[in-house]
Amino acid sequence: MDALEPVSAARCFGGTQHVFRHQSRATGTPMRFAAFVPPQAAAGPVPVLWFLAGLTCTEENFTVKAGAQRVAAELGLMLVAPDTSPRGEGVPDDPDGAYDFGLGAGFYLDATEAPWSTHYRMESYVVEELSELVAAALPAHPARQGIMGHSMGGHGALTLALRHPDRYRSVSAFAPIASPMRCPWGEKALSGYLGPDRAAWRGHDACALIEDGARLPALLVDQGTADGFLETQLRPELLEAACAAAGIPLTLRRQAGYDHSYFFIASFVEDHLRWHAATLAT
Amino acid sequence: MDALEPVSAARCFGGTQHVFRHQSRATGTPMRFAAFVPPQAAAGPVPVLWFLAGLTCTEENFTVKAGAQRVAAELGLMLVAPDTSPRGEGVPDDPDGAYDFGLGAGFYLDATEAPWSTHYRMESYVVEELSELVAAALPAHPARQGIMGHSMGGHGALTLALRHPDRYRSVSAFAPIASPMRCPWGEKALSGYLGPDRAAWRGHDACALIEDGARLPALLVDQGTADGFLETQLRPELLEAACAAAGIPLTLRRQAGYDHSYFFIASFVEDHLRWHAATLAT
Repeated sequence: MDALEPVSAARCFGGTQHVFRHQSRATGTPMRFAAFVPPQAAAGPVPVLWFLAGLTCTEENFTVKAGAQRVAAELGLMLVAPDTSPRGEGVPDDPDGAYDFGLGAGFYLDATEAPWSTHYRMESYVVEELSELVAAALPAHPARQGIMGHSMGGHGALTLALRHPDRYRSVSAFAPIASPMRCPWGEKALSGYLGPDRAAWRGHDACALIEDGARLPALLVDQGTADGFLETQLRPELLEAACAAAGIPLTLRRQAGYDHSYFFIASFVEDHLRWHAATLAT
Repeated sequence: MDALEPVSAARCFGGTQHVFRHQSRATGTPMRFAAFVPPQAAAGPVPVLWFLAGLTCTEENFTVKAGAQRVAAELGLMLVAPDTSPRGEGVPDDPDGAYDFGLGAGFYLDATEAPWSTHYRMESYVVEELSELVAAALPAHPARQGIMGHSMGGHGALTLALRHPDRYRSVSAFAPIASPMRCPWGEKALSGYLGPDRAAWRGHDACALIEDGARLPALLVDQGTADGFLETQLRPELLEAACAAAGIPLTLRRQAGYDHSYFFIASFVEDHLRWHAATLAT
């Protein structure tokens, strides 16, 4: 077990908002993550709700902008927000410095193509290493984990939950990329990290995973109708069709006038926390 | 009336979070401010609650970090957050680039010393120009205004409310500088902006204003006990003594373990909004 180095800790709604740094075996780099520990953790392990952030984000965005700690403190949920990619010396970035690949754009998968495959191993990092680290170092209940995310991180929440159904009991998403195989962000990322063979991409596409037999017990998705990425990148109708064909109970709420920002997430995050808590409580 | 130029607008808790830019007569510079317009404004003017931010901040910090829109949308309060200083071409800054004077550190007063007196006119800007602009351009009720702030902005809320009792009906603060005349941040700012005559400083020191006869109907202050600036810069005991001597009803809550961050503000902002709304509703 690698040691957790405290970066900061602040009292928040009767709990504590932590940021930690540690040396990751999965990525071969130092990694940071945020963890809100609710007051109920003083009495024993609490359920853990993961939040995976979108392109350009770090562990900070959700932590300072979503206002989720208030409800987490009420419900007794730990909130864990990882970074979105490896960073630091020797970690390659998009050759053009684009925001949608490389640093800040790890897509929550293990890359197989050089030079990305050395450090870009965010699936192993989140699902295995960080999950074990949190369970060992913090008052987390390892059998009660849920996952949610935004945009690229909504794709991450969906695909990680579909690929690791024993790990995550509940899943939800804000404005997720529904099918990275069928949008510019996803085509760039999957071809870069996984190579040109589109068959390999199906394992990291929520709709393809469902078509190929993966299942979720239920799914909550919020999507703003004024989201500038709605039609070209996010395409919730593809997820709707895949869930309908597979019989997955999807609650897709089209929120009139909301955009892609954390103001949208903040407006509906309480509903998501209550959704997860209802499943994770038992 | 100078024109408001929209910078951004996002749906948030059923209302709209705006950022505007405009050319200020008071500061002689372009200025930005944030305004949350709650859903109740569709039916007519709503009360306005001002938030003055602390050192290094802009209009953005409170807007993205405090999570206040949720309660403002429930209570029907407009939230207006100005910037903390003039900025831009020709605006002088601290010669050493320090964070506690110049840019981001306007202290909500009109400077009288050159070169600061040309642009550093934040009292006139907030109390007169921006107040009139908001009342003219947004669905704001000009007779129902409250003010709150954090740290340097807590000082601002206290001194502006004490100096303009007809403007602000309600006032509260998070970790305010209680007496700038008696702390390093304040001594530097007041001597820089107002010159060496300490008699002139009394008009911008909450405790001295109260000693000299200014009054507030009531005051709510939250202060974290783990705030690193508590003893050297903030000194709430001075405000406590001044209010006690003057018979001002002060509710000073020492919040155990909380620091100076927006995690502290977020934890208690709901109480402040309800406090203001109770006064501003009638």
